[in-house]
Amino acid sequence: MNKPVSTDNPIDYQDRRKRLQAKLRRKKIDCLLVSRPENRRYLSGYRAPDHGINESSGVLFVPAQGHVQLLTDFRFQLQAEQETSLIVNLYQKGLLNLLDSLIAEHRIRKFGFESHYTLHSFSLKLSELAEKREIEMIPLTGLVEKQRLIKSEKEIELIRQSVMLNESVFQQIHAKLSPDMSEIEIATVIEAQMRQVGAEGPSFGTIVASGTNGALPHAVPSERIVGNNTGVTIDMGLVLNGYCSDMTRNFVIGTPDETYTRIHRIVRKAQLAGIAAVKPGVLMKDVDLAARKLIGDQGHAKHFGHSLGHGVGLAVHEPPSVSFRSRQALKPGMIITIEPGIYVPDWGGVRLENMVVVTEDGCEQLNSDTTWLDI
Amino acid sequence: MNKPVSTDNPIDYQDRRKRLQAKLRRKKIDCLLVSRPENRRYLSGYRAPDHGINESSGVLFVPAQGHVQLLTDFRFQLQAEQETSLIVNLYQKGLLNLLDSLIAEHRIRKFGFESHYTLHSFSLKLSELAEKREIEMIPLTGLVEKQRLIKSEKEIELIRQSVMLNESVFQQIHAKLSPDMSEIEIATVIEAQMRQVGAEGPSFGTIVASGTNGALPHAVPSERIVGNNTGVTIDMGLVLNGYCSDMTRNFVIGTPDETYTRIHRIVRKAQLAGIAAVKPGVLMKDVDLAARKLIGDQGHAKHFGHSLGHGVGLAVHEPPSVSFRSRQALKPGMIITIEPGIYVPDWGGVRLENMVVVTEDGCEQLNSDTTWLDI
Repeated sequence: MNKPVSTDNPIDYQDRRKRLQAKLRRKKIDCLLVSRPENRRYLSGYRAPDHGINESSGVLFVPAQGHVQLLTDFRFQLQAEQETSLIVNLYQKGLLNLLDSLIAEHRIRKFGFESHYTLHSFSLKLSELAEKREIEMIPLTGLVEKQRLIKSEKEIELIRQSVMLNESVFQQIHAKLSPDMSEIEIATVIEAQMRQVGAEGPSFGTIVASGTNGALPHAVPSERIVGNNTGVTIDMGLVLNGYCSDMTRNFVIGTPDETYTRIHRIVRKAQLAGIAAVKPGVLMKDVDLAARKLIGDQGHAKHFGHSLGHGVGLAVHEPPSVSFRSRQALKPGMIITIEPGIYVPDWGGVRLENMVVVTEDGCEQLNSDTTWLDI
Repeated sequence: MNKPVSTDNPIDYQDRRKRLQAKLRRKKIDCLLVSRPENRRYLSGYRAPDHGINESSGVLFVPAQGHVQLLTDFRFQLQAEQETSLIVNLYQKGLLNLLDSLIAEHRIRKFGFESHYTLHSFSLKLSELAEKREIEMIPLTGLVEKQRLIKSEKEIELIRQSVMLNESVFQQIHAKLSPDMSEIEIATVIEAQMRQVGAEGPSFGTIVASGTNGALPHAVPSERIVGNNTGVTIDMGLVLNGYCSDMTRNFVIGTPDETYTRIHRIVRKAQLAGIAAVKPGVLMKDVDLAARKLIGDQGHAKHFGHSLGHGVGLAVHEPPSVSFRSRQALKPGMIITIEPGIYVPDWGGVRLENMVVVTEDGCEQLNSDTTWLDI
């Protein structure tokens, strides 16, 4: 299962860029400004994170023909040159000035930008530039994301490694848990262990929620001591070679009571029902409903307020959304989470999350599932 | 210096909201949608983080008159109710549907939104809504940020505590460093220690850069072993009670060579020159230039490519920018970093960063500066 990815076979960033450029030519767009960090990394291998959307560490200028450039500032120059094979073009006087000269140089008439990762305030400045240069600004959404939706063999292998490493961290930590630890302490040792075993870091802030805190699906770890005989939710993921994992486990240190056991079993059955429904051609909403119906039949419909799952890749949350509203169909190569939950105010919650890859005739679990704690 | 903040004197969120509402009335705007997480927290105490701008954990609907509401979804309901005194209004069918009914209910004619924290794609949907309801959408920028620019006594005290705790973490870790540790290992123990001593977490990804890596101002910690007799840059900050700290130290395990010592001294002198220039009424560019000139005079102008500093508060990077381009004047109550650096490709870098609060007649350093490693 966990065969190492050959380093003889590195990711072909150039092929990814060529496919995007061909798409731009088909759409008769002269260039695309790629601002979303995961898209940037997907197309170039550039690893620098953004410190929020307001503090970009660079953008890609992708002309429909010719060389792609990485536009960044002084602080990231060396990293950009080390991590990519692209032309690195520094904006000394701000990004807009540099774009202005690129528009002239490349004779751009139709300038595409990522509407879903561009601030309204920046779009106003792009509009001014368009007016000055008498060109069109074309808001585009999801062009690179669509390319990222279907994972290559190589990507599936990289994500599998991320999932495996994440599971091994859970197992190491779970073996050492004691009831006198606080939620924060547990989250801290998990994230330290992730780095210890070679992950770039957690793929999101690790969630450790015990007892009634488990009723908050997105709980922030607190000083609360987890204690004996109470439910503990751990939702954790890591980044390895850029690719994310995401997994939720729920267990009790000590002996679970009847209520806990009953709810845990319903959630596990709902998860298995969701996984069983995954197959090319099936609509997202029908996968969601397969799990949701089972929870509803047990009287917990109102305790499961979120979607069943989401895509995972370079971003920990990415398309597709496995939502009861989505009429999108599953396709081979998509990687999604299946994560039903039951959240009861003043009691707590249970959520169980695994990742699967859609195959030609169903799906394969990426989790080895040896971390599944049967009760 | 480090007197504890009395819990008898909690933050007056209502006063903050009232000041914003008065500002909206003066501008004849009927409401403001607050989407930026720090602004949301500033006005309400709501602590939930966003998982990026694409995954909001809620927005504030601030009418010019009357009660402010926190709009969020199921997953955050309990947390919102626990952490704020606001009306919590869940969007069952998406935020836009809820805004549609709030516009009708409150008879909104001029609807303000945070242009600098709203995606272009969402602004297109707001435009559709405006057309349907025949109202105006008003892009606003920096309204709440302007309120946050000048820190209250209480905020200064909270930030001082954050700075002090951050320094103590540095001291604890520095005492334990050994030359066989990797950059990642050091970053990991720092962040674990932050949580151990009660911080909410790091205020940004801790930077540990050794040797030539120090030439990258925003280096990501690597597997590199720091070793003896080579420069190590540690840039670290934490969040305590929502407020951030930010500090950079540079040192050598073992014996620094002449080049290192010379560059370190230039940077330290530039830092002191910058701090000496801080006074109400002085322009940001003149503070920057006070430090920059000293570095330039030593022949390193081209090795200092970033601004001298930035504001710190609920966000680790916030206005004002202490930039050589900024004609903004310093005012009492502003809190800024002073962080000159010299970065030499293929050699390494030195950056030193402290935080200061602008007082009536100059400034006070928030750092105790006992972590300053004189060489």
